[in-house]
This record gives sequence, structure tokens and C-alpha cells, in this order.
Amino acid sequence: MTDKNIEVILNQVKEGKVEVEDAMKSLKNLPFEDLGYAKIDHHRGLRNGYPEVIYCEGKATEHVVGIVEKMINRGSNVLATRATREVFEAVKKIADHAEYHELARMITIKQQEIVASRHKILVMTAGTSDIPVSEEAAITAEMLGNTVERLYDVGVAGIHRLLSNIDKLNEASVIVTVAGMEGALASVVGGLVDKPVIAVPTSVGYGANLGGISALLTMLNSCASGIGVVNIDNGFGGGYLASTINRQIELAGKVD
Amino acid sequence: MTDKNIEVILNQVKEGKVEVEDAMKSLKNLPFEDLGYAKIDHHRGLRNGYPEVIYCEGKATEHVVGIVEKMINRGSNVLATRATREVFEAVKKIADHAEYHELARMITIKQQEIVASRHKILVMTAGTSDIPVSEEAAITAEMLGNTVERLYDVGVAGIHRLLSNIDKLNEASVIVTVAGMEGALASVVGGLVDKPVIAVPTSVGYGANLGGISALLTMLNSCASGIGVVNIDNGFGGGYLASTINRQIELAGKVD
Amino acid sequence: MTDKNIEVILNQVKEGKVEVEDAMKSLKNLPFEDLGYAKIDHHRGLRNGYPEVIYCEGKATEHVVGIVEKMINRGSNVLATRATREVFEAVKKIADHAEYHELARMITIKQQEIVASRHKILVMTAGTSDIPVSEEAAITAEMLGNTVERLYDVGVAGIHRLLSNIDKLNEASVIVTVAGMEGALASVVGGLVDKPVIAVPTSVGYGANLGGISALLTMLNSCASGIGVVNIDNGFGGGYLASTINRQIELAGKVD
Amino acid sequence: MTDKNIEVILNQVKEGKVEVEDAMKSLKNLPFEDLGYAKIDHHRGLRNGYPEVIYCEGKATEHVVGIVEKMINRGSNVLATRATREVFEAVKKIADHAEYHELARMITIKQQEIVASRHKILVMTAGTSDIPVSEEAAITAEMLGNTVERLYDVGVAGIHRLLSNIDKLNEASVIVTVAGMEGALASVVGGLVDKPVIAVPTSVGYGANLGGISALLTMLNSCASGIGVVNIDNGFGGGYLASTINRQIELAGKVD
Amino acid sequence: MTDKNIEVILNQVKEGKVEVEDAMKSLKNLPFEDLGYAKIDHHRGLRNGYPEVIYCEGKATEHVVGIVEKMINRGSNVLATRATREVFEAVKKIADHAEYHELARMITIKQQEIVASRHKILVMTAGTSDIPVSEEAAITAEMLGNTVERLYDVGVAGIHRLLSNIDKLNEASVIVTVAGMEGALASVVGGLVDKPVIAVPTSVGYGANLGGISALLTMLNSCASGIGVVNIDNGFGGGYLASTINRQIELAGKVD
Amino acid sequence: MTDKNIEVILNQVKEGKVEVEDAMKSLKNLPFEDLGYAKIDHHRGLRNGYPEVIYCEGKATEHVVGIVEKMINRGSNVLATRATREVFEAVKKIADHAEYHELARMITIKQQEIVASRHKILVMTAGTSDIPVSEEAAITAEMLGNTVERLYDVGVAGIHRLLSNIDKLNEASVIVTVAGMEGALASVVGGLVDKPVIAVPTSVGYGANLGGISALLTMLNSCASGIGVVNIDNGFGGGYLASTINRQIELAGKVD
Amino acid sequence: MTDKNIEVILNQVKEGKVEVEDAMKSLKNLPFEDLGYAKIDHHRGLRNGYPEVIYCEGKATEHVVGIVEKMINRGSNVLATRATREVFEAVKKIADHAEYHELARMITIKQQEIVASRHKILVMTAGTSDIPVSEEAAITAEMLGNTVERLYDVGVAGIHRLLSNIDKLNEASVIVTVAGMEGALASVVGGLVDKPVIAVPTSVGYGANLGGISALLTMLNSCASGIGVVNIDNGFGGGYLASTINRQIELAGKVD
Amino acid sequence: MTDKNIEVILNQVKEGKVEVEDAMKSLKNLPFEDLGYAKIDHHRGLRNGYPEVIYCEGKATEHVVGIVEKMINRGSNVLATRATREVFEAVKKIADHAEYHELARMITIKQQEIVASRHKILVMTAGTSDIPVSEEAAITAEMLGNTVERLYDVGVAGIHRLLSNIDKLNEASVIVTVAGMEGALASVVGGLVDKPVIAVPTSVGYGANLGGISALLTMLNSCASGIGVVNIDNGFGGGYLASTINRQIELAGKVD
Repeated sequence: MTDKNIEVILNQVKEGKVEVEDAMKSLKNLPFEDLGYAKIDHHRGLRNGYPEVIYCEGKATEHVVGIVEKMINRGSNVLATRATREVFEAVKKIADHAEYHELARMITIKQQEIVASRHKILVMTAGTSDIPVSEEAAITAEMLGNTVERLYDVGVAGIHRLLSNIDKLNEASVIVTVAGMEGALASVVGGLVDKPVIAVPTSVGYGANLGGISALLTMLNSCASGIGVVNIDNGFGGGYLASTINRQIELAGKVD
Repeated sequence: MTDKNIEVILNQVKEGKVEVEDAMKSLKNLPFEDLGYAKIDHHRGLRNGYPEVIYCEGKATEHVVGIVEKMINRGSNVLATRATREVFEAVKKIADHAEYHELARMITIKQQEIVASRHKILVMTAGTSDIPVSEEAAITAEMLGNTVERLYDVGVAGIHRLLSNIDKLNEASVIVTVAGMEGALASVVGGLVDKPVIAVPTSVGYGANLGGISALLTMLNSCASGIGVVNIDNGFGGGYLASTINRQIELAGKVD
Repeated sequence: MTDKNIEVILNQVKEGKVEVEDAMKSLKNLPFEDLGYAKIDHHRGLRNGYPEVIYCEGKATEHVVGIVEKMINRGSNVLATRATREVFEAVKKIADHAEYHELARMITIKQQEIVASRHKILVMTAGTSDIPVSEEAAITAEMLGNTVERLYDVGVAGIHRLLSNIDKLNEASVIVTVAGMEGALASVVGGLVDKPVIAVPTSVGYGANLGGISALLTMLNSCASGIGVVNIDNGFGGGYLASTINRQIELAGKVD
Repeated sequence: MTDKNIEVILNQVKEGKVEVEDAMKSLKNLPFEDLGYAKIDHHRGLRNGYPEVIYCEGKATEHVVGIVEKMINRGSNVLATRATREVFEAVKKIADHAEYHELARMITIKQQEIVASRHKILVMTAGTSDIPVSEEAAITAEMLGNTVERLYDVGVAGIHRLLSNIDKLNEASVIVTVAGMEGALASVVGGLVDKPVIAVPTSVGYGANLGGISALLTMLNSCASGIGVVNIDNGFGGGYLASTINRQIELAGKVD
Repeated sequence: MTDKNIEVILNQVKEGKVEVEDAMKSLKNLPFEDLGYAKIDHHRGLRNGYPEVIYCEGKATEHVVGIVEKMINRGSNVLATRATREVFEAVKKIADHAEYHELARMITIKQQEIVASRHKILVMTAGTSDIPVSEEAAITAEMLGNTVERLYDVGVAGIHRLLSNIDKLNEASVIVTVAGMEGALASVVGGLVDKPVIAVPTSVGYGANLGGISALLTMLNSCASGIGVVNIDNGFGGGYLASTINRQIELAGKVD
Repeated sequence: MTDKNIEVILNQVKEGKVEVEDAMKSLKNLPFEDLGYAKIDHHRGLRNGYPEVIYCEGKATEHVVGIVEKMINRGSNVLATRATREVFEAVKKIADHAEYHELARMITIKQQEIVASRHKILVMTAGTSDIPVSEEAAITAEMLGNTVERLYDVGVAGIHRLLSNIDKLNEASVIVTVAGMEGALASVVGGLVDKPVIAVPTSVGYGANLGGISALLTMLNSCASGIGVVNIDNGFGGGYLASTINRQIELAGKVD
Repeated sequence: MTDKNIEVILNQVKEGKVEVEDAMKSLKNLPFEDLGYAKIDHHRGLRNGYPEVIYCEGKATEHVVGIVEKMINRGSNVLATRATREVFEAVKKIADHAEYHELARMITIKQQEIVASRHKILVMTAGTSDIPVSEEAAITAEMLGNTVERLYDVGVAGIHRLLSNIDKLNEASVIVTVAGMEGALASVVGGLVDKPVIAVPTSVGYGANLGGISALLTMLNSCASGIGVVNIDNGFGGGYLASTINRQIELAGKVD
Repeated sequence: MTDKNIEVILNQVKEGKVEVEDAMKSLKNLPFEDLGYAKIDHHRGLRNGYPEVIYCEGKATEHVVGIVEKMINRGSNVLATRATREVFEAVKKIADHAEYHELARMITIKQQEIVASRHKILVMTAGTSDIPVSEEAAITAEMLGNTVERLYDVGVAGIHRLLSNIDKLNEASVIVTVAGMEGALASVVGGLVDKPVIAVPTSVGYGANLGGISALLTMLNSCASGIGVVNIDNGFGGGYLASTINRQIELAGKVD
């Protein structure tokens, strides 16, 4: 609800083009759609071409399908996270061009063209077991219009695997590091580059990893300056934050 | 240690301009300065005009002074965090243009001109008690060459204070939200903008705030997508991450 | 065991109407019914028309059925929480007018008319996934004789969804906010109204939500004053507390 | 910002009485006062005669004095919590009728008459050491216009002390139980009455009391239904919640 | 390995009745039986008529059967805790007089007569759901030769149920209180009697009960003096401690 | 409030010796003394010759002195725990025979003769640093009429120190083990004897001892059966529990 | 990447035997093999005859098989931990001499002879339930070329079982203690020997064992000096650390 | 108490050289000295030339002095940890050759010559603030007869500082890594060498470092195999464990 909107409405009222009662409705009529069990916020998607995102965990399949249907009707791209194959099968029935990403447990539906960004996001993992979370980050970033590079299994226990790939770090504008166990990758990467580094802790490990708390604490306490941390196993959040950063970079490039 | 450096050295060896022994030294001679108790990394500072940063907590005053001295000699700007007034008085003796920021507990020494960025960083707090941490963030960002806007005491318990300042949110490229107690500010801001939002939890509060863990968890679990969280009371980290993001934005603008 | 009761018994003893031995039994004979595995407290229900409430989790099905049977015999309304469909099927056999509320996992049996209160309780959720817990709250409040309004999926990440429903907040006497993840809804609502706000944290989320601890801490540390918090996923508790409050309000209205 | 306000402004615009530019300012000009370091929300206080409340911990003395000054100028009653004697001495200089409550660490300034409620709030403690927190609750409730009864040192280790005071429980409309150590008082009281019970855990105890977490968990897990819990040592919160409840009760009584 | 034993052996050596080598073996040959995967300590059982106790959880069924077999051969009574029905069926094949206690998940085999103690142990629960744990305590105590009284579902939310059974508390020598959720029963009982009170926290509850930690902390922080706490859901431990206490009481009675 | 009491009063009423009004007062007039800030429970002390116990921490010195005064007037022995020397000096002024136990931070006042028990309590520590807590236990037990033996610095890191003192373990009826750091002493002692073992964890240690939580968990999870655990640093609780056990043993001996 | 390697390459460049471009590749061409989803580090294995180790948990079966295949091709011994029987069956198809260790959940493939060390590693457990973890440690150590002795079920609750086996402790060079519940075994062993003691906490137990945290804390806080602790249930880590220690001992023996 | 000792005594008994009574005393007379408040274990020190170690924290100064005196009388070297300067001054009075190590807070008294080992221990820190803990480790190891190399301020945020010192890692037999904040140093070092790596977490850092828990968890969950972890800030433990390892290495070298 920007000043512009208010000004327009007020001028319409002043000029008699709009009745007071209607103006009041407009001022209150915000752009979301009420399904009863959900209030879909189309506003964000319409504004910047971002897809709508549905977090499927804990939602009934019919609710997910209902939300997807509304989005398809508005022509949005759709991104559904933490979706089981069952949910995908149900969605597929109303959207046969829907794709399922097994590892990342995501559904994507492309209805509008996605132009890939000039600036790159690098998504890295410490180990092979961190790949599901990093794929969630990578696919999220791709659906949000970013060029994404992947670099997997370069954890610090064999530091030469990381150092021999330093070119990839230098070529990216934003780096997402995904790591479980002790999660030290973020610190080492943070010390090697002067770029925004986003850290995604994973629950990979056992015992005193406390379901990912160990990696989370490592990343929050990193001796490398200025690492932005998201929730445990939150690949989506990592990819999304990288996208909002990269979008500002793209915009700056275009404006100038 | 980029490929370029290796190539140059190898070519010099090939052409006989450099002896094998000397080349070996160069390949190993990395740009840090060894004071025994500390190994100062001048590399980063020289490369991008960033000031050197000293974390004072737990360091002996003479060590801090020693490190500052080396930095001054190299012409760097200096930023010292978590510095007591005692440390400042000692630093002042060898650097009379040093400044002390009481609230933020920081020392700054400007030896090189700092050109402020075209894109803005907004630093916000939920309450008055969060100001010391946010000042650390703001001064860090300023020393790293950013234009910084401040917006304080706009916590969610009086949401109209935040909503009436929405223009400031829209004008920034990166937003740093600083909040203690339940730390809900980050979520509300994250839902209002499509910019990178950095969340700095503070230890403000008591009892079940668990020294800031409460605000930290709130920010990590935010229902708003893609918020990057740093350590509790880590204003420096928040300001630094905002700077690395803003720097990529500035660079994109300049390159184009 | 009020003074009145004691006085009556003592007078009966004095007047020789009651033997000492019998008076002793009366003084000790408190109004609960002993099934061996359970001691049913009919006292509360009889006193104020409240239904008996059975917490089914961890109780054998035959025990639940046994307790329900005793209650039906006394003409009480019955409310059973955390009941599986299996338990419901067993209860249904002895009480064919029993109803099952799938989402809320509750069984209700109405034997006495429930007169709805004049003052309203508003039950809100931050997201769609919080609905099961909020339904437990809403149905509990309804069974306890309250008029209940529902407002779902108005979390703070899209604050306009909440602000456009502010009328509903203003019309209620008591508000129950149900939220998982970071649970910030309670703070924002608490800042918007001057009514009793009850906060029910849910376990919705993952990773650092710590099974609902994150939302719980948020609500306990709320910067909005005077929010009353109940246990994680304790919709029943939230609805019950709202009822005891609303009942005092109703009583005050009637007395005057 | 109610519908009424919007309607008035829009009509004034329509009738040409107000310029568009001015109307915009009004729509954004919300009732708080900006001191730079604080944004005082006079709105709440003016609306319902509640005093302004200042949380002093972590605020500089001059800031507290500054805020108090503004409030006095507007004729508000003032309530300052967690105030040291030093802060009180400074406040006293600009408000000689200010009172200091040593045990509760509170400052009160009465500028408007406070009419005590007809319905009573009972504030109870388990032990003598819980009295400071309960006094914070009691004084808060009194400043907010409530009649408050106190009942101290009636913890469950000597249950007869509680049972012999059951009349006091029956006479109150709302009960605030303040307890440290294992905090069992709330459960026992919750089982004895059908009134809203607010539980305030205190940090009284040592070792495995974990600074009050033990009492907090007890209260959240109470087997008595529907107890509303606030933060550890948060006497203010307990008193405030009791007041919002009692205010609805009073209002219901008056309306009828 | 008492002094007596050493003296006997040494005298035998001195008198030449025993060779040095054999004496050495005796001094080291302690009374346990080595099955490879287990070293059964028959010593304790033989000494005081106590049954052998097998903790089944995490042991292979054939290992449990193997241990039981050895015990039967030595004529011991057998007590197996945390045994599934499957384990019982396997044990039954080699010991047809074995009994299974479904609720307590225990197997008992009586080969020697158990004389019940004159002094009584009272085992109480707060709720119906705590019965499995309390049955483990009660059966353990019975197998160890104690007279056991049970008193179930007398939690503090209906304090009259407890108070009307105070005779049972007064008749016991040792009291075991079993409670989940907030576990306040132990405190109230501890305040009513001057006997040893043993508190067994259970994991009954949900959310902030943290799997029984809540009840555990309550019991450790009890304002009633001198309550001895055992591990969560450790009915066996509670029953065993009560037995060691009651055994000293019995012994004192017999000696005099 | 035993049945006997009720019967007596009722008979007096019946026989007209007591008026109804007075009987009511008696029935409610329970044996505690109300000082306003404290309700002293003289009942327990009078019944069994136990001293009154005052927990000084968090109580104002004048309150402690006030409570002591009342107790002295009634001729009770007095035991005050967690008392600073300042409190002692104040108490000394009204009770010149008061003694101060520096290490244990206790005040004792003997007004009635204490007859030491025939059965012994053994108080042991793992290390020298655990002595203050164990002295609190030992003095408590002595004031409650027990013969106490001390055995200090016999921790498991030098197991021979413990084994060479096994006679002392065998001579005691109840054993109190006091240990910090990893607290393994309780397990080893529990495995060596068939007596009640009470475990008192201390906060001795640093880092991952978590202020005593480490020793507490060790004791709760002991592989030795049936150890009763009290709160961290709660020497008083350990001594008190040992006393209630030993008292039952003494009583059994006397009765027979 | 040692100096030697760099020197050789540089000399080759100088002498014109190697082109600059190729030298660059060599300097960067580190000894790992890239499978896309995994980067196998053959370097360590080749250097010292150690087998490759695969952590199977969370890896797809085909990935494990793929990695095993590469290793077999290079002639390495293979050690796979946390492998289910399903994974073993799949591996068996490409390596028919693969062995499965049920209890330890490990797969071993021997392609090179393993010469057992002269110095011994002793692996001990407190209980029978700890055997799976200790077998993981023992087999790891054996595969890494060590002579391993096992000593099981010698926990501190029956200290004589441990003391009668003290010879085995004296014969070992390194001792690995595996224990759950309260984990006191490490402390007692640490006090009996002057050898390196490695402590492996297990998750054996329940309730307040917190999934192994209890045993972990015990070991970290051991009053016996210098015990090295690994993660909960990390038998592999314990065996590996013992091996690296024993290898230095063997090497020292051989060199002299 | 080895077999040898028992054999000797038994033979003396057999040959009549020693009376049974005296033999019994010998068998029980273990080599510790009883000061009442402490039982000094001279056994270990005498056996292997190790100094006695006194943990000063929580011990009265006169107790420390008393223990030191006994040790000096027996000619032992003395090592006192966590000693304040005050304690040192007191010790100095009875041992004028005592030395104080300010940073490490240690007192050393050399009475016997210490021959430095041929094999080296390397003690490393991540940052300057970790030096006090690492000095405790280094001095401990030196007092126990080891050659110690120091390498400080080589944390992973500037990985080149570590890589350029790789020779020092290769020259050591055992490596002790000391690190606070996120503690990632241990993982990187563990991945670079095939030696025993001991990890000492420090409490350096703030906020979510949880007093060193963050670094501790990192080290326990290290993706590098087989790192042995000690308690937070336990430099002594790290140095001691390194010594027991190095001692076995030295012994192996000497024996061969």
C-alpha cells in the first residue's frame, strides 16, 4: 500500500470519480485471495515476476491442489517445497506440465518464461548427504530467475578439494554453503572470498549434532565476518535470500 | 593465491628471471604479517580498500595497540570492535585522530578517504535498548564505505510506528533489523519488502529470552522467506554482511 | 469444601441429627467417583455446567469408554481431546450421538443444551498448518458455552491480511492467537488491542523451531504487554483459559 | 486507524475542506511522539486512561527522564519498571510527587485519579522470596485501576496454609500466582477455582531451577486446565494481563 | 571382598593349605559368571535373597534367554524389565512358570518364596497415564520382598482426591510418587508427611514437557525438603530405592 | 489435620462443650504463624522434635531475624541454610548461643538436646572442592538427630582410595555421596552396597559441566540401581532425605 | 601438496621439460576422483595403506556401490560404516568377497593384506547393550592394521568385574572405553592407567540420558586427566583415533 | 595394586617373613597420603616421574599450600592449574623456586630434572584470544617431559596462514588444536594430517557460542575422522592426553 496508491485514490475521490464508500473498500481491499483455509498473497508474485511458493508440509493434499489451481488460473509460475510424490501426483492431474524434483522434494510449474540472471549464484555442499538440501536451494534460485552453479562434496576434511575449485567461488556474486555435521565449510569459504556468503546448516550427522544444531551454531559463531545463516535444512530460505541479493545486483546493473 | 599469480611466477622461472628457491618462497609467502601473538592478514584490506578490523574482547591492551600500530604504518583505515574506553585511551596515544563511539564500543581511525555508496543500507531497531548493537552495525557499514540510514524504536508492539516509515524501507537496497526480546521485527519487515533482510538478534530482555536465544530462534524460524541471521549482539557481523551485499550492488552498477 | 458445608454439618451434629461417625464421613466424602484406574471429578462439572473433559492420549480405549459411560449416566456433556478415530468408533457404540472432529481430533457429546455467550472469543492462526490446534481451541470454547469467531492464515509475513481484519479483533472480548514457526502473530495482535490475548504456540515448522520451543519463547518474551501463554500445541488449554475469562465477563454482565 | 477516521478524512477531501496533500499526512500521521531514541505511543494511554509504562533496564537514565518528562507534560500517570534507586532520584528531580517502591523496583507518578475496580485481583506467592516479583504485579494492577488483594507465602509444601485461605481465592475475579523453585502453586490453585489463573514463574531457587526455567515448565505443563503463563520474573506482565481481563469484566458490568 | 575373606585366604596360605598361585586366583576370582556378551553378578542376589534383574531394552532375545537360563539354574528369582511380549514368549519356553505383566512390561519368575515385609511401601500416581511406570515400581518392590499399597489418579489438579486418602500416606514407611506433566504431586506429598518420599517423573504429557524433563525439574526443585528423584520413567529405580530403604527399616526391626 | 483431631472436635461440639463458631475456627486454625511476609509452619517441628529450617537466600536480614526470634520463643532448635556471615552477625545479636559454620554457610541454634541416632549416616565426597556442600548435608543430618560419619576426597579417579575405606560404607545405614565434575562416585558406591544411596551433584567443575548439570545427569542415569538424587549443590536436601530414612530405621528399631 | 612436489615441478619447468600450462594443471590437479555426487580422496589411502572409509547413512545405495567400485578398481581395502543389510547385498553383487558385520553394521572388503600391529588396542564396554558401538570401534581398528583385544560388560556398578581384568588394561597401548547411561567407566579406567584413554559415549539408556548427552558430558567432565572424547555412538571415530595413536607408536618402534 | 605386589606379599606370608595382620595392612595400605581434606595420590607420580597436579579452583589457599608442602617433601615436581596470583604468592613462601605463568594461570615447581622427549607435540590456536588455554596445554605437556612447539593465530578464516605452516604439522607426533567461536580449526587440521589430533574448545566468543558449547559441538561432530575432544577451556586435559600419547610413542622408540 504505497503513497502513490493512496494519492491516486484520494484524487479520484476529490474529483468525484470515486464514491467515499468505494474508496474505503479500495483502501482496505488488499491483494490477497481468501480460500477460507488460506489467504493467498498474489501481490508479491504479480509485482516482480516471482513464482508463488507453497510450503506443503502439514497441508492436506486437497488444500495444496486448491492453492495451485488458483495460481495456475492467474498465470503464475508455481514452486512447491517439501512435497511428497503423492502430492505431486495429485497436482499433476490439474497441471500436466508440472515437474517433480525427487531429491529436493519440489514441484515446479513454469507458465511464464524465466530469464536467467547475468550474475551467478554458487551453491556448494560439504558432503554428498547435503545434496537434497542444496538442490532445494539451487532449484529455488533458478525458479526465481537466477543462473546457478553447483559445487558438491568439497568439505573441509579434504581442503584441497575446495582450494582446487577456487575459480568457481571467484566467478559467483553470491555463495550458498550447505553443510551438516560440524558445518565448518561456511567459515573457510567466508575467509576465502569478499562476497555475501549464505550458510545453510543441515541435519546430516548423528549424536551430538543435535539434529543440525551443531552446524547451526558453527555458522552463527563463524570467525569469518558477515555470514548470513538460515534455519536447519532450509534450502529454500538459502536460495531465496541469495535471489533477493542477486536481484538487487541485477537491478543495479540494469539501471546504470 | 589465484591462477594469475602462479602463472606469473612460473613464467618467471621458465624465463630464468627467478630462481627455483625464490619462486618456492613466493608461492608460500602469503600476505600476512606475523607478530607472534597475532598473524595480521593485510591481504583483504589491500585488495578492496576495506579497513582492518580488530575484535578487542579478550585481547591484552598492548596487543591491540601493537596491531593498530602495524595497520597505521600500512596506511589502512582501522576499525576496532568491543573496545573499552581504556583500550581507546591507549590507542589514542599512538593515533591521535582515533575516534571513540561510546554506545557502539568502537574505535575508528580514518587514514584513507571513504567514498559513500550510492545504494543505501537501512539499520532498524525494535526498541531503544537495541541501539548499541545497531550502532555497531551502522558504524561498521559506514567505515566499509556505505551510506547508512537509521530507523530506531519501531518494534511490532506498536506496528503503526513501522508502517508510517515504510518509505525508508523502500529506499534501501539492504535492510538490517536489530531486535531483542521476541525479535519479531525481522519477520514483519521481511514480509513488507523484497530486499535482502539481515536479522541481528540482541540479548535485550530477561528470563526466558535466554540471553538472546529467543530472538535468535524467532529470526531463524521466520515465516517470511529468506532472512539471513547473524550471532546474538553481533552488530558488526550484520553491518559487514550488509556491506558485502551492497558492494556487489555498487560494483554491478559501476561495471554496466 | 466451603465454610457453609462445614457449618451445616456441624449444626446437624450439634442438633443430634447426624452421628459423629457419619459427619466424619461427610467431611471426608468428596465428590469424585473412583473407577480404580481413574477418579472422576464430577464436582466441577455439576457446579457450573461445564462438560467433563477427557485427555485420551496414553489411556487405553476401554478406560476412555468406561469414563465416558459414567459421564453419560450423570447427564454431563462430554469433551474428549486427542482422540483417535479408533477411540471415537468405540465411544460411538455406547453414545450414538457422539460427534468426531477430525482435524481437532476431538469427540463431543451434547446431552445438555449449550447457551452461547453474548461476548465473543476470537480464535486466529498465523498459517494454514496451525488450523488443527486452533480448531481444538475453538471447539473447546464452544463446548464450554462461548460464541467463537475464527480468523485463519493471517500471519505477520503478509501483515495486510491481518490489518484488513482488524474489525474482528475489535469485536471480541478475548483473543486466542495460534502460531508456529516464529510465532510473531501474538506480539503484533497484542500491540493492536487492549483485550486479553492468549497465545498458543504450535510445533509447526522444522529445524531450529525445536518442536515448538521457538514459538513458545517468542510468545513468552513478547514486547507486547501481558500475553498469557499455554503449552505447545495446547489448543484445549488456550480455549479453556479463554472460556474462564469470558465466563467472568458474562457473569459480570448478568449480575449487574 | 479505524474506519471512522478514514471515512472522516475522505469526506473532508471530497468536500474540498482538506487538501489531498494534507489528507495524506493525516493518514500517515499516527499518534506517537518521536524523541529519536524512542517513539512514545501516547495513543494507548489516551484511549483508556492507562498509564504509560517505561521499561527502564538497559535505558540510559537521561532517556528515562526524557520520556517521563514528555508523559508528565501530557498529564499521564506514569509507571516505570525495573528502575534502580539512581533512576528514581533523577526522575524525582523533575517530578517531586514520584514514589519509589523499593521491593518491586518501580516508580509511580499519579497525575490523574485512579478509580479502583469493583472486581478484585488476587496476587499470591509460594514463598517469601517471591514477594518482589509479586509486588511488581500488584502495583502494576493497582496503577491500572484494579482492586488488589495480596496473599503471600502459601506454597504447596505446607498445603494447609493455602487451604485455610480459600475464601480469598473465591472472592477474586482473576488470580495471579507467583512462584519459583518447582512452581507447583499454580497447578494447585488452578485445580481449586474456576477463574482465570495467571502464572508468573520466578527465578527463585538454584541449581536445576535453571534460572526459573523449572518453574516456567511446571506452569506450562500444569495438569490444571487453562493457566496463562508469562515470562520468568515478569510480575509486570502478570499484573498487566490480569488487568486487561479485569477491565473486560468491569466493562461488562457497566454496560449492562 | 571383605577383610574376612582376605584373612581366611592368607591364613590358609600361611598354614600351607593353599598354594600361592591358587590364593592369587581366589583373590581375583570374584563371583560373577562370564557369558562373553555379559558378566552376570550372582553375588548380590545370593547374599540377600534379591532376585537378579535384567534390563531387556537393547538386548537380543537370545541373550536375555541365555541370562535367564543361567539364573534359573542357580535357583534365583528373576525380574526382567522393559520386556516385550516377544521376549516373554521366548523366556516362557524355558521357564513355563514365568509371568508377564503387560502394563509394566515386566517378566517375573518366582523360584524362591518371597516373604512380604511388615512395613509398607505406598506407590501413588498423579494420573491414569502414569500407571505403567508405577506398576513397574510396585512389581519391583513386591519381587524384592515388600508389601506394596497402590493409590492412583490423585494428582494436584483435584487436591481433594489426595487429601481424602491421607490415611494411606500415614500408614506407609516409604512413599513413591509417580507423575508426569508438571509433576507437582511429589511436592504436595512431601509437604504432608515426614517419611522418605521418592519421586519418579514420567514422560506423560507433550510439548514443553520435553519428554519428562519438566516433571524431573519440578521434583528436583521441590520446595518440600528431601525428596529423592530417579530418572524419567524409571519405575524400576523408584521401586528399588524404596526397597533398599524399607529393607533397612525391616532389618532394624528384626535386630532389636 | 488427622481424623483424631476432627473426631475430638466433633465430639466436643456434640457434647455442647464447644460452640459451632469456635469449632469452625479450630477446624480452620491450622498450626502456622502468620508474620505477613512469612507463614511459619511450627507444626512439623513440634510434632517430631525436628528443628525449624530457614532458607536465607533472597530473604532480607530482618526477615530472617524475625523468623528466628519467633522460633526461639517457641523453644525450637533452629537451622538456617545459605546464610552469609552478615546474617549470622544479626542473628547472633538476638541469640548469642548461635553458631556459624563457615564452610557450610549455616547457622545452628540448639535449644533442645539432640539425641544422636544409633544408626549411622555416611557422608562422602569425590573431591576436596565438594566439601562445602557435604558439610551442609552432614550438619543438617546432625541437627536432625543423626550420627554422621564423614569420608572425603575418595573420587573414582583414584579408586583405591574408595576401596580401602569400604568398611565405612558397610557400617552406615544410609549413604550420601556428594560429587561434582562427572559425578561418577554415586554409581561406584551404588554398586558396592545394598543400602539407600543418596546422590548430591555439585557445581564443581567448569565448561561442559554446565553448572552441575553434568553430575546431575550422571546420577540420574546411574547404572547402579535405585539411587535417589537431589538438586545441584543441595546438601541440605541430601542430609534431610537421609534423615527421614534413618528416622524410619530408628523408629522400627525402637518399636520392636 | 608438499614442498618436495612443488620443487620437482618447478625444476621441470625450469629445465623446459614441462610446459607452464601443464605445470599449472599439476599444481592444481590434486589426488581426488570426481564422481559428481562425490569427490573420492584416494590420497590418504594410497599414502599409508589405510582403507577408504564410506559413511553410508544418507547416501543412496547406488552411490555407495559406485564409490565402492572405484575403490575396488584401485585395489584399496574398503570399510563402509552404518550400512544396512540392503546396502551390503548390493555391494556383494560387485564384490563377492565383501563381508557384513551385523552388529556393527559394517561392510569390509580386504584386497590387500593387513599386518596386525605389535602394540595392542583394548576396546571395553560398560554393558552388553554397548557392544554394537564397540564392535564398530574394534573392526575399524582391525581394518586399519591394529591388534585388538575386547573386554565387554565391565561397568562400574559391579566394579570387581573391571578390577579382576586389570591385566588386560596393562597390556594395551591404547584403551577405548564404550559406555552409555552415565558413562562412568571412562573415569574409572582413566584413573587406573597411564595410557591414552579414548571415551565413546553411547545412546544406551532412556529419559534423562538425553540420547547419549549424559554419557558424553560425564566423559568430558571426567575427574581423571586427559581422556579424549568422540561423538555419541561414534565407534568408528573411537577406533580411528586409537589407530592413529597406535600407528605413531608402531612407527616409533620401527624407526628406532 | 598389581599381581606382582600381591605375589610378593603372599610369598612373604608363606615364608613366615610377614605376619598375616601386617600382610593385611599392606594389602589395604594403598599409596595415598591422607590430609583429612585431601587424599594425595603419590602413587602415580612416583611410578612414572610425572609431577603431581593440583587443581586450585575452589580450594582454600591454605589447602593448596598444604598439599604443595607434602609434595615438595617427597621431591616431586609440582604443577598447579587455575591458580590465582594470590595462591602463587602463598606457595612462593614455602617454595621460593616456584614459577608463575600469568597467562596460563599455572604454578610450576621443578625439583627433578625433566628430560624433553624426542617426539614433538604441536600446540596450535585459531586466534590470539585462545592463547591462555593453549599455554595451559603447552606448559602441562612440557612439565610432563615433552618437547612442545607452538603455532598461534592460524584460524580457518585466513586458511593461508595455516597452509603456509604445514611443515610444523608434519614434524609433530601429536597435535593439540585450541579454538573458540566455531572451532573449525580441528576439522581442517584433522583433514591435513594422519596423526592423533586433540581438540580443545575454548569459551572465546559471545552470544550463540553458549560459553564454548558451540566449539565443543563442532569438534565432536568433525567430518575429519578420529579427533579426541576434551572439556571447554581444558588446556590441562589437552596437554595431558597429548603427553600420555607421546609417552607411549617415546617408550616404543626406547624399547626397540
